[in-house]
Amino acid sequence: MTYCCGILVRDGLVMIADTRTNAGLDNISTFRKLHVFEKKGHHAFAIATAGNLSITQNVLHFVRTGVENAKTKELERLEDMTDMFAAAQLIGRAVRKVDEVYGEALEQASLNFDVSFLFGGQIAGGPPRLFMIYSAGNFIECTPDAPFLQIGEHKYGKPILDRAVNFNTDLYDALKIGLISMDSTIKSNLGVGLPIDIIVTRTNDPSLEVNSRIDATDEYFRDLRERWSAALRAAHMDIPRPNFSRS
Amino acid sequence: MTYCCGILVRDGLVMIADTRTNAGLDNISTFRKLHVFEKKGHHAFAIATAGNLSITQNVLHFVRTGVENAKTKELERLEDMTDMFAAAQLIGRAVRKVDEVYGEALEQASLNFDVSFLFGGQIAGGPPRLFMIYSAGNFIECTPDAPFLQIGEHKYGKPILDRAVNFNTDLYDALKIGLISMDSTIKSNLGVGLPIDIIVTRTNDPSLEVNSRIDATDEYFRDLRERWSAALRAAHMDIPRPNFSRS
Repeated sequence: MTYCCGILVRDGLVMIADTRTNAGLDNISTFRKLHVFEKKGHHAFAIATAGNLSITQNVLHFVRTGVENAKTKELERLEDMTDMFAAAQLIGRAVRKVDEVYGEALEQASLNFDVSFLFGGQIAGGPPRLFMIYSAGNFIECTPDAPFLQIGEHKYGKPILDRAVNFNTDLYDALKIGLISMDSTIKSNLGVGLPIDIIVTRTNDPSLEVNSRIDATDEYFRDLRERWSAALRAAHMDIPRPNFSRS
Repeated sequence: MTYCCGILVRDGLVMIADTRTNAGLDNISTFRKLHVFEKKGHHAFAIATAGNLSITQNVLHFVRTGVENAKTKELERLEDMTDMFAAAQLIGRAVRKVDEVYGEALEQASLNFDVSFLFGGQIAGGPPRLFMIYSAGNFIECTPDAPFLQIGEHKYGKPILDRAVNFNTDLYDALKIGLISMDSTIKSNLGVGLPIDIIVTRTNDPSLEVNSRIDATDEYFRDLRERWSAALRAAHMDIPRPNFSRS
């Protein structure tokens, strides 16, 4: 399993991804799922991946080395993109290209061509943007009404995002809430696990203000987990007990 | 969709079920999914149902009217049972009987025989017990190590149960935590909705101490939802903001 979320607020963008992969519960590994692309002052991107690892790694290969533009016949790489929408389209084309190469063989092996991506970041001159790209290469964009997107095992971590995040949330509060969402997921699904990769990019600064890995020894995350558990227990203790009777 | 949970603590048993059913998002209705069986001082049961409504209603029909015992050839009804384990077996046999009648036709219509049940309660002389019964008629029993079971859309409401419930939790705290779990699910999944049916039965008292329906006008539940939302927001506000840098 996988859990990745991106949160887009007025002040910038946060992306968080776990690193656990599994081919059966008895074959668990650690693979990076948050892939960063940065040229300071020019662009700062990240792609978070969920689904079949062989497919997502191939997609990343093509966005790095280039996907042919059907009109110009030229190879286009993610780092050459000059706007975020075109960059999301490029990732979509890379997904289709991998499907062309392996789709039929995967189907013969009864494997689904099942992947999804979060793509977020900014290019100098434009605002941070966040997209979710599907297996068919189509995509949606995150908007201020619901300023987050999730891929993978998204349900355990959604209640806190639904309640606590809006477009005006402080950038580092957004990171904190994203980490709480990740903690809830890790606690309820063994298929999602530490370490966690995180990036933060601030509006109007095309660079990665944070690009970091959080592992089990990280004191801030340990403290956050303990405080959140204690706060949840306290929160329900403060609510009066119900007093229903037979009706 | 559906969300039902049962919580079994030292002091008794709580069961909670929503009432929303849908055949597509454009065909939403209200059906009771928590079915009670009570003979005060003798037994107090409830069955919560998830999955195909035509199947679960048929299963309920058979546990009420009787399923043949393969050995004795007699019809056995749920209310005749003298121990909870045998009662769970009876429900399992009713599930298999419905599968015999409709399974093949459902398969031809490309419909899954996909149902699950929570069965909980007590019979005079025995402790409250809680079971989850699957489509194949097999079942598991809840034990003190993880004193709750869920069916239907279980993920949104699991984090609070994972953190806040243990076997020594007060009975009405268990009900309260179950309602918070239901609230989280309702908030994140449109397919789960009010009203909610609840029962409470207290250890060594085979009767329903609570057997009630909570609708949108219920003041306690409205207050619980507001307090919980406010508490979650406050809980994350009390956690310091992270201070990661590039690593």
